[in-house]
Amino acid sequence: MDDLTLSDYVNRSKDRVLGSLIDWLRIPSISADPGHAGDIASSAEFCAEMLRSAGIENVELLSAGGVPAVYGDWLGAGSMAPSVLVYGHHDVQPVDPLDEWAAPPFEPTVKDNVLRARGASDDKGQVIMQIEAARGLLGALGDLPVNLKFLIEGEEEVGSPHLDELLERERERLSADVIVVSDTTMLAPDIPSTTISTRGLIAFDVGIRTAESDLHSGIWGGTVPNAALVAAGLAAGLHDSDHRVTLPGFYDRVRELTHREAQSLADTPFDRVEFCRQAGVKELEGEAGRSPYERTGTRPTAEVVALHSGYGGPGMKTIVPATANLKIAVRLVPEQSADEVDASFRAWVAGQAPKYAEVTVTTVGGVAPLMTPIDHPAVRILGEAIENVWGKQPLFTRSGGSGPEEALGRILEAPVIFLGIGLADDNYHAPNERLELNQLWRGTVAAGQLLLGLRSLNSR
Amino acid sequence: MDDLTLSDYVNRSKDRVLGSLIDWLRIPSISADPGHAGDIASSAEFCAEMLRSAGIENVELLSAGGVPAVYGDWLGAGSMAPSVLVYGHHDVQPVDPLDEWAAPPFEPTVKDNVLRARGASDDKGQVIMQIEAARGLLGALGDLPVNLKFLIEGEEEVGSPHLDELLERERERLSADVIVVSDTTMLAPDIPSTTISTRGLIAFDVGIRTAESDLHSGIWGGTVPNAALVAAGLAAGLHDSDHRVTLPGFYDRVRELTHREAQSLADTPFDRVEFCRQAGVKELEGEAGRSPYERTGTRPTAEVVALHSGYGGPGMKTIVPATANLKIAVRLVPEQSADEVDASFRAWVAGQAPKYAEVTVTTVGGVAPLMTPIDHPAVRILGEAIENVWGKQPLFTRSGGSGPEEALGRILEAPVIFLGIGLADDNYHAPNERLELNQLWRGTVAAGQLLLGLRSLNSR
Repeated sequence: MDDLTLSDYVNRSKDRVLGSLIDWLRIPSISADPGHAGDIASSAEFCAEMLRSAGIENVELLSAGGVPAVYGDWLGAGSMAPSVLVYGHHDVQPVDPLDEWAAPPFEPTVKDNVLRARGASDDKGQVIMQIEAARGLLGALGDLPVNLKFLIEGEEEVGSPHLDELLERERERLSADVIVVSDTTMLAPDIPSTTISTRGLIAFDVGIRTAESDLHSGIWGGTVPNAALVAAGLAAGLHDSDHRVTLPGFYDRVRELTHREAQSLADTPFDRVEFCRQAGVKELEGEAGRSPYERTGTRPTAEVVALHSGYGGPGMKTIVPATANLKIAVRLVPEQSADEVDASFRAWVAGQAPKYAEVTVTTVGGVAPLMTPIDHPAVRILGEAIENVWGKQPLFTRSGGSGPEEALGRILEAPVIFLGIGLADDNYHAPNERLELNQLWRGTVAAGQLLLGLRSLNSR
Repeated sequence: MDDLTLSDYVNRSKDRVLGSLIDWLRIPSISADPGHAGDIASSAEFCAEMLRSAGIENVELLSAGGVPAVYGDWLGAGSMAPSVLVYGHHDVQPVDPLDEWAAPPFEPTVKDNVLRARGASDDKGQVIMQIEAARGLLGALGDLPVNLKFLIEGEEEVGSPHLDELLERERERLSADVIVVSDTTMLAPDIPSTTISTRGLIAFDVGIRTAESDLHSGIWGGTVPNAALVAAGLAAGLHDSDHRVTLPGFYDRVRELTHREAQSLADTPFDRVEFCRQAGVKELEGEAGRSPYERTGTRPTAEVVALHSGYGGPGMKTIVPATANLKIAVRLVPEQSADEVDASFRAWVAGQAPKYAEVTVTTVGGVAPLMTPIDHPAVRILGEAIENVWGKQPLFTRSGGSGPEEALGRILEAPVIFLGIGLADDNYHAPNERLELNQLWRGTVAAGQLLLGLRSLNSR
């Protein structure tokens, strides 16, 4: 079994795989919206059926707080062979603002080798890549080089609120020597990379009320508190003029990079024009004295992700808004603690908000940062698989995103490695999400190579 | 014809009048929402039919930019008698946030002599008061002491965008010696008052874009611009720490009060606890060194009426918002100029917003402030009518609101006087709008008394 055999298999399978992926993407499995619970169920069933047809056994839906995660395994490699757990998710982000989509988000289109749909790259495309690698190996070899398990979650996009509970409950069945996650991006199609860390995440939903109801801006304006101004004041005060987060003690526990980490960061090519083009922005802005990749991968950040106050409908309503809602997402890096940031944020809000405002802070999530050492054997094997397919050693990066990987590694006590084939401009969480199909095909070969390589990993 | 006769008429008519008003209030004539155009048409027809049945002649719908205003007159007093134009409006404000209404806004309820519905006090209740005064006099006397004209507009709540055009076109038919507006409030049921001025209004809709689309806060957050932060920065920068508006030159043209105006303001009773209770706020906040009534009546203000950015749906979406919308309403006092404030605001935004943000400013409305001298004969007659009914001389106040009165006075070249029977806590433009029925009944008598008094006014 080699690259060529896997490549042949992938080439022969493109139409079928693409057809399956498109059918799956038509299911609007938006986990943030309770109205889509039925679609989450359909999406899980669809995923289960793909696993079964690929030759994966013991496929079943595991309930995580009532939301189905898909499990399946193939355990024929025997107790001496290592076990690999593949993690992905079948839920997707909400789709608004809808009017910015070039085509409806759940009517996938393919053009110039790019598939566009909500979930194409985050994460259904990357899940199907892993399933197809297993199908290919099982078809060619009749068995797999390792014991393989799949866990495809349905609540990743809402912060995996029941994953810890599920992992604790199913710890035995999910136990593995290494966890492979395919839910991240590479630097570019010709600059293969793999991440060795994810940031933590804690978010805050801040409700503000300054009056019993909205007030006429002519009768009352100028002499009563304005909830929009309170929210704007909090948002504007979250950073200083150097774009550093103003929460007390926020940077105290941030570990500086080791020499090797700093070197890897310095080796990462950076093209400001291309970076801005991919982001769709005119200029960059962030913490003073830090490079863009340093900011997104190695530094903690606090983003205002939403601010809503006052009349949002057509026309103009001349009111003083009585309420405002402010949502802030904080990304954490080693060795920050979500609990400490939670306490610091609450104290900061209490100190900043005027006394006349009723302010409620709700904490959403609370994921710790994760790191896997560059010199772990599984990371080396992953690097070789990527090099085999892309023809270059991958760069080791730090992912700015936050996911359930930290819980997987912590509860299952296994290293987490990342075979992510998304690209920076795949529009994750944004309109016009996309997947470059060449990345999907290459990734399928690499996923197969990775399983072949991991057979040399020591089993526990 | 005296107070007693009018009072008897009103007492006999309460059930019928209340029934008509409730039927009218059931029509959701929201002018801000194009989806309610049919309701605006129904509301105009309903109003026209009330005028006809009251004995008003020549009733017809006048198009103001396609939206119906209701006209009617009774010209039997002859060319030597003065002409009175009654102005009101039949459109209403939007109703969100709907969940803060104790009962559906277009299903009127009556309890403890209080009628609750959108439009109850602003302005259908006050329009029906004027119609019933005319009906009562016509029924009792067979004719009216003055030539009477009605203009009931359908676009007041969206800033009367076509009123100037309508007034210019119908200048002849609408000509009057005095214009009576019933669309304002009194200080309290036992503190009758009438306003002698309204503030001007100019509003700005500010669109902000910092990226082509929303960006994943993990991948991009901390190094790309955030539209919510740009909007929050503008909102937070609109006032200094003394709550003075920071637009350059904003206060330059504000005329200080004359001695008599200042005296009238000082005589106005003010109960901070009651004021806060009516507003539904815990504390007051506004321009340093100015009293609450000074701020709302005699000082210009700038209010953030809406700020929207990022995902507003259920759950949390961890994005960096690409767009934001900020709406600001500025109230003007004599001798400020809407055009100058427009230019100042645009220059200020251009100077404040970061260069990477695409910012568009759309000006909405642009109404100048209005004043009618306290010593005008029509104001004196109005004062007597109010005193006859409420048993006290009214206080002369300045209204913080802004309406079409300035255009009426300017284009029709007539003084504008205000018989307004709303109360400060009638929840104009807010959930749970209400009307105290005792105010309606007293106001109907006063409106009749006013017409009787105005016959002594010199005709042009």
